[in-house]
Amino acid sequence: MGGHMARNLMKKGYPVVAFDVSQDSLATLKADGASVASSPAEVAFGVDRLVTMLPANAHVQEVYTGPSGILSTVREGTLLLDSSTIDPAVSKAVAAQAGEKGAVYMDAPVSGGVNAARDGILTFMVGGTESDFGTAKALLENMGKNIVHCGAVGTGQAAKICNNMLLAISMIGTSETMNLGMRLGLDPKLLAGILNTSTGRCWSSELYNPVPGVLPGVPSSNDYQGGFGVALMTKDLGLAQSAAIVTQSPTPLGSAALQIYRQLCNHGYGGKDFSSTFKFLQEQEKN
Amino acid sequence: MGGHMARNLMKKGYPVVAFDVSQDSLATLKADGASVASSPAEVAFGVDRLVTMLPANAHVQEVYTGPSGILSTVREGTLLLDSSTIDPAVSKAVAAQAGEKGAVYMDAPVSGGVNAARDGILTFMVGGTESDFGTAKALLENMGKNIVHCGAVGTGQAAKICNNMLLAISMIGTSETMNLGMRLGLDPKLLAGILNTSTGRCWSSELYNPVPGVLPGVPSSNDYQGGFGVALMTKDLGLAQSAAIVTQSPTPLGSAALQIYRQLCNHGYGGKDFSSTFKFLQEQEKN
Amino acid sequence: MGGHMARNLMKKGYPVVAFDVSQDSLATLKADGASVASSPAEVAFGVDRLVTMLPANAHVQEVYTGPSGILSTVREGTLLLDSSTIDPAVSKAVAAQAGEKGAVYMDAPVSGGVNAARDGILTFMVGGTESDFGTAKALLENMGKNIVHCGAVGTGQAAKICNNMLLAISMIGTSETMNLGMRLGLDPKLLAGILNTSTGRCWSSELYNPVPGVLPGVPSSNDYQGGFGVALMTKDLGLAQSAAIVTQSPTPLGSAALQIYRQLCNHGYGGKDFSSTFKFLQEQEKN
Amino acid sequence: MGGHMARNLMKKGYPVVAFDVSQDSLATLKADGASVASSPAEVAFGVDRLVTMLPANAHVQEVYTGPSGILSTVREGTLLLDSSTIDPAVSKAVAAQAGEKGAVYMDAPVSGGVNAARDGILTFMVGGTESDFGTAKALLENMGKNIVHCGAVGTGQAAKICNNMLLAISMIGTSETMNLGMRLGLDPKLLAGILNTSTGRCWSSELYNPVPGVLPGVPSSNDYQGGFGVALMTKDLGLAQSAAIVTQSPTPLGSAALQIYRQLCNHGYGGKDFSSTFKFLQEQEKN
Repeated sequence: MGGHMARNLMKKGYPVVAFDVSQDSLATLKADGASVASSPAEVAFGVDRLVTMLPANAHVQEVYTGPSGILSTVREGTLLLDSSTIDPAVSKAVAAQAGEKGAVYMDAPVSGGVNAARDGILTFMVGGTESDFGTAKALLENMGKNIVHCGAVGTGQAAKICNNMLLAISMIGTSETMNLGMRLGLDPKLLAGILNTSTGRCWSSELYNPVPGVLPGVPSSNDYQGGFGVALMTKDLGLAQSAAIVTQSPTPLGSAALQIYRQLCNHGYGGKDFSSTFKFLQEQEKN
Repeated sequence: MGGHMARNLMKKGYPVVAFDVSQDSLATLKADGASVASSPAEVAFGVDRLVTMLPANAHVQEVYTGPSGILSTVREGTLLLDSSTIDPAVSKAVAAQAGEKGAVYMDAPVSGGVNAARDGILTFMVGGTESDFGTAKALLENMGKNIVHCGAVGTGQAAKICNNMLLAISMIGTSETMNLGMRLGLDPKLLAGILNTSTGRCWSSELYNPVPGVLPGVPSSNDYQGGFGVALMTKDLGLAQSAAIVTQSPTPLGSAALQIYRQLCNHGYGGKDFSSTFKFLQEQEKN
Repeated sequence: MGGHMARNLMKKGYPVVAFDVSQDSLATLKADGASVASSPAEVAFGVDRLVTMLPANAHVQEVYTGPSGILSTVREGTLLLDSSTIDPAVSKAVAAQAGEKGAVYMDAPVSGGVNAARDGILTFMVGGTESDFGTAKALLENMGKNIVHCGAVGTGQAAKICNNMLLAISMIGTSETMNLGMRLGLDPKLLAGILNTSTGRCWSSELYNPVPGVLPGVPSSNDYQGGFGVALMTKDLGLAQSAAIVTQSPTPLGSAALQIYRQLCNHGYGGKDFSSTFKFLQEQEKN
Repeated sequence: MGGHMARNLMKKGYPVVAFDVSQDSLATLKADGASVASSPAEVAFGVDRLVTMLPANAHVQEVYTGPSGILSTVREGTLLLDSSTIDPAVSKAVAAQAGEKGAVYMDAPVSGGVNAARDGILTFMVGGTESDFGTAKALLENMGKNIVHCGAVGTGQAAKICNNMLLAISMIGTSETMNLGMRLGLDPKLLAGILNTSTGRCWSSELYNPVPGVLPGVPSSNDYQGGFGVALMTKDLGLAQSAAIVTQSPTPLGSAALQIYRQLCNHGYGGKDFSSTFKFLQEQEKN
């Protein structure tokens, strides 16, 4: 993801200083025209706008607040945009520490996947003050086409995990509904048509139907390859549950969705598209 | 429901013979021009097309196969259209018994509620043979605007309960997502906007949002009055679970949805609109 | 089951008239000293006490009320004891029809499995009047060691499915608790010991622990062979859910337990012992 | 809790230096013979064994690693016993920081409640090395009667949250089973007796039955007063879920249990005993 984003910035004429733990990724970026740094601290030392894209809470904490992290060298007034999907509470904590150094940290997680990153059409959900949002948007527009201001720091993460929680619920719901209907004798295309013109309609039933053959060009019609992986959805559902525990919010179906995706991970579906819930539920082995 | 449907038939010029256990309803229909009968058997004795609209399995069994039921007097070739929402297995059983009398039973449950019944714009989901469907459609078009052939007998019921199961899941999912997002600091209208332009989008988030004030003119903005009641949704979810048990279909979120709506019923929400899941989940009393 | 029960009656000196759809089973019983009949009706014609042991609702309905069923020939005053595990509502319905013939039907489902049937140490949970219970008990004591009067007709079934619902919940709960504890670094035997001397203690943790090696002589220590099969537990949980739907009883964990056992069935565990929930939850394939 | 524990130490002749954010609690302890300190740092400065009992993760972090926390003054070789119930990951992190100061931190959460603390009969579940456990046990035996070594640091917490997760599942399961059985016509005492002599037996059904009147002297027979509060159980279930997310452990019923207890909290049951799940599930208002 990060490589595509950096390349889109360079295409628009921005000089880029890059760091990655993967030497291969760094070498590729260097060949594409980026300067390379030997640590997050070195990147932060030389720039006034900085974008991070990292796997999880612990990496964000390390890269920002660790011994050779961004905050050890960051200059006053630097804009820090974190596009990782992480716990909103971690975003808020890092933002507070950045503020102590005079820097501005905003959370800006994305939706859209690797292809959208490559094509510069990501959606960014941004958390931070209204006044900082303008500056952030001007930069992010070089990498995405839809830049949404969600509110204070942390609300970008909140919007991301809320959307994905509802997506997971809808996808599992669509899968079990399609499976039940088929076992009751309904043709899957006919059933999808009924749902999609009625009140059961959702993005998962209409544009990403999990039953093979109902829609062309979606992962379910290609053995659940490509798309958004089960392991990534499981991670996002874990973040949603952590946020629900902290805010004491009831999420009966969100927590059940996490359990179901966890089962998929444990039974070999981690690398498949998240619509493979249908296949998992449909499965029926001889006993 | 049944009264509105009968009046729409009369408006189109059909003579109607009516029966209802409520003498008041019957008197109203008589005043509107219907003949009245003293039992289902008496109705069946005099007509060649017959529509029933009943609360639950037991009523359908009684009205069709009971001592003074339809099948005791039905004439060969009569078309029996049952618009009740019941267990598909019951529809199939009644259809078989009707067949023994030379009559044709089709299941034709509706969606759209009382107002749609009054306005003649119901959707009918019809189960029966292709050849019988044409005759059924010609009659049902006087009471609805969307007449869908779902397949063999029982598939009308299957389509109805599948749609409503997915609807219930989506509504609860939307409710808990909106509640979680709000507790994380998101403005509800903003969050709804993000979901509705992203992959979390569903009918419940877009056209029937459960958070008061997000959309005008929906039950959530009117103290959850009107709309589709919690008790009726709970009944339909029970039918879905019965069908899932019989067909050995896994429905992890569908079964959880039934449990949640059951809780709403038990805590005084039975007469409220089914979007009151938001209110139920949001509730936070002092301890 | 039925064969063992009949043999125990014969050992105590009772003459037995037997019927089974399996000719092999009948031949074995004949060799052991039973008379054989060609239908349930023929059995009923010749006896004043009759015990049935059948797989499910439909079989009980057929064997009692079908064309060559027990009620077609049953004599006034005959005691009918049904040891099948079925829906209490079906028990009540058959009891009412038996009553019309002057016969007494009681539900008397068992716990204990095939070995307990062979050894004559079954537990019978009996539903019927106090006065009839005495007669029933005198007969059932030849086949079991614990004969419990549960109340009116149907309460034997109620007791059976309630116990098994709680058992399923406890077993899944024990499995996920043991698995979580082990992943947190606890030794399974030590953890079992802590639970069993504390408030988490249950039959499943104490006498039937699902983790291989914690207890000797239980199915988990023998690759989950023997014991009480997943498919049978799934059936009983379906009965519990049907009863919960009819009585409008909330059963949040009972319904979740059905979904989990359904998943086990679908993934090849149907023939394994019901403690294999541990193995199913623990499973962790490479992705 | 902490006050009772300190008084038991003093009764056994130990001099105690105490700190609490509540001045009232401190004054009481002073009257009972304790020295008082003005901060955790001041306590740590003067002792070689120290016991903490705090509400949640954040308090433990503050009291140990904050500006006037224990680790700012702790002496080499001091034994730190934390009896709070918190995230095992937090215990491990604090233990590592304590180790850097040459102190030994062990987690030692308790079960047994306020009365057991007063009577000196708590159970302590202790995580730490075998060699340190002996010293810890010698001290803890003055406050409890059952001191269990669970393994490395963090396993005391693991054992505590595992036990409570299984307890919550069993309690909800017992509640819904008792309620279902009663609606099916079973007498609650009779049903409890059947469960308790069969495979559904658990601590909640046998010694803490949630149905009023089944057992004397338990909270359910005293309007759910006393005992272990719903809000505390909800907190422990949140810790279990956090641990399950981190260790990627499936906990389908554990997560459902958290959702149910969260609902109880939200509907005014937070201060009632955790067996009030029965009352919550049973509730049936007029609609």
